[in-house]
Amino acid sequence: MTEHTYAVIMAGGGGTRLWPISRKETPKQLLPLLGKETLFQSSVARLEKIFPPERILVVTVEEQAREMRVQVPSIPKENYLIEPAPRGTASVVALAAAVVRMRDPQAIMTIQTADHHIRNQDLFQYLLHTAFDVAKKEYLVTLGITPTYPSTGYGYIQQGDALNGDYKYPVYSVKDFKEKPDEATAQKFLHSGDHSWNSGMFVWRVDTILNEVKRQMPELFNAVGEIASAWDTPKKDEVITKLWYDLEPQTVDYGIMEKAEHVAVLPAGGLGWSDVGSWDSLFEVLLPDMNGNVAANTHHLGLDTHNTLVYSVNVERLIVTIGMDDVVVVDAGDVLMICKTDQSQKVKNVVEHLKKHNQEKFL
Amino acid sequence: MTEHTYAVIMAGGGGTRLWPISRKETPKQLLPLLGKETLFQSSVARLEKIFPPERILVVTVEEQAREMRVQVPSIPKENYLIEPAPRGTASVVALAAAVVRMRDPQAIMTIQTADHHIRNQDLFQYLLHTAFDVAKKEYLVTLGITPTYPSTGYGYIQQGDALNGDYKYPVYSVKDFKEKPDEATAQKFLHSGDHSWNSGMFVWRVDTILNEVKRQMPELFNAVGEIASAWDTPKKDEVITKLWYDLEPQTVDYGIMEKAEHVAVLPAGGLGWSDVGSWDSLFEVLLPDMNGNVAANTHHLGLDTHNTLVYSVNVERLIVTIGMDDVVVVDAGDVLMICKTDQSQKVKNVVEHLKKHNQEKFL
Repeated sequence: MTEHTYAVIMAGGGGTRLWPISRKETPKQLLPLLGKETLFQSSVARLEKIFPPERILVVTVEEQAREMRVQVPSIPKENYLIEPAPRGTASVVALAAAVVRMRDPQAIMTIQTADHHIRNQDLFQYLLHTAFDVAKKEYLVTLGITPTYPSTGYGYIQQGDALNGDYKYPVYSVKDFKEKPDEATAQKFLHSGDHSWNSGMFVWRVDTILNEVKRQMPELFNAVGEIASAWDTPKKDEVITKLWYDLEPQTVDYGIMEKAEHVAVLPAGGLGWSDVGSWDSLFEVLLPDMNGNVAANTHHLGLDTHNTLVYSVNVERLIVTIGMDDVVVVDAGDVLMICKTDQSQKVKNVVEHLKKHNQEKFL
Repeated sequence: MTEHTYAVIMAGGGGTRLWPISRKETPKQLLPLLGKETLFQSSVARLEKIFPPERILVVTVEEQAREMRVQVPSIPKENYLIEPAPRGTASVVALAAAVVRMRDPQAIMTIQTADHHIRNQDLFQYLLHTAFDVAKKEYLVTLGITPTYPSTGYGYIQQGDALNGDYKYPVYSVKDFKEKPDEATAQKFLHSGDHSWNSGMFVWRVDTILNEVKRQMPELFNAVGEIASAWDTPKKDEVITKLWYDLEPQTVDYGIMEKAEHVAVLPAGGLGWSDVGSWDSLFEVLLPDMNGNVAANTHHLGLDTHNTLVYSVNVERLIVTIGMDDVVVVDAGDVLMICKTDQSQKVKNVVEHLKKHNQEKFL
């Protein structure tokens, strides 16, 4: 893309919803969940088609940065921004914007995630180009995902009027941000036609977003300003240590977007987007065979087996299923999990149980 | 028991119904399926409460004999009768009877299996004592098992009148042997009250059974007579090699019992007998917990899991099941099998498939 455009990947998360494959030491984004590349590598590869590596930044925690640098050596070391401790996505966004502005005051940046999957990469590029065009006009732009089912797991964005302007893709003003709804509300949103899932992907000029931070979260604005000034100097560690821990943890949605002015949304349908947020989501990402089965990295032999995911870390092991329907089988080596697909959210209960019973080695 | 009583264990079988745990090299009877002892060791231990080891014989094939001698060193080497090749249970029975008669002309012997489970060992002893009493009077005695469900997997024995005699347990003449029935017939047998499963356990005087062999299978009678005469001499190998391969393979049920005279049955209820003939049979043998689950040699954590068997060769591996009902999970290390319990007979289809596709290493 043109000069002054940057991509910032937020990559600090942990998460246990893909346990037993994702573990404390190896969170989802660092795993080759969907093939040979890790989700982090795929996210970078997707962005490297649009941005040169020196204009891609990664915000993460120290524990993950080491592995990330090994996985993606193309991104310069100084583009890894290390959070001393998690303080919410508002802090991450503000810090990244402040550092990027310090380096390039005219910058426009997109916020991207490290652990999502996007099948239709051409459309992704196309949308992002349009979003940058909109962002130039001082909009805070969100990429919305057209819902395909009544999810209660995502926040929603309600669109308002179409924006004026010669854009290559429909763009709307944002009427409202909605928290994760209950099921009846999610049904309503799905059928309304004017609600998108909040994907957590944004595009904005650094000065636009920092002005909003200044207006709504002035303490955060002052802190990241001071940190950014010290960033590329020997005083960085001292300043960040002094200021970061006192920040109030806050999300970008609640802390900034909900009450922001000039917010726009591009509602993307057909992007093939998934947050790979639970085992059942893999049925959407890894394409099932004619029986609805997905065998990932696995020597699978299924008799009378339908809509069943078999996922293994060991391609040598033969996994046989007989008479199984709607099941997720995950072979993580030291742990084997067999789960009815519609109950895969109970993985977190298992993780809780193991914590409580001091079985840390399985976490 | 008194002098002249012998136990002969038939232990040559292979069988794939407990694949992937039972394998070509390690058939069911040589595995510690139900605990620390193998089924073969348990069978011997059960008989050693009744017979001294020098009056227990094992008929098997060379490939299994080596491991059996390691597992049960108490049985003298000369009591392992090696079949050069399988020729059916009629041949095994006739050979064993001929060899035992050669050593002890007054012998009474029981035919026992190597791979069945019997929970109620006191009742087993009691029944066997009674059966020997009946056999003394020149009956061919079969131990029948009172059916607990309409099995289509066993042959049935229909009882006739009660035998006269002062026996400690009801004994009946046998009216008929029935082949494995279809489901409707099995239902009828179950409700008739006069049908037992054919367990493959017998008791008879060696001269009584050999007379029946002579009457119905004279060629077999002559062959085993000649082999037995040479058995404890240096000519054994020469004679058995000359005669054994020409024998017509035949079962003891079809070849001898169905048309035999003076057949009696002791219909045993409450013996807790199982032929451990399929994965679902383990639910009867290994006692389920209050949710109907059985965890064998396994670190199992079940959420919303019922009537599920989890069987592993690796007690270190954590096996988690969520929302599973009526499932058998078998972790054999290199193979993992997950199977709806009522479809566990399809294991043989998997074995066929693997044979056809040259995946011998999993057989």
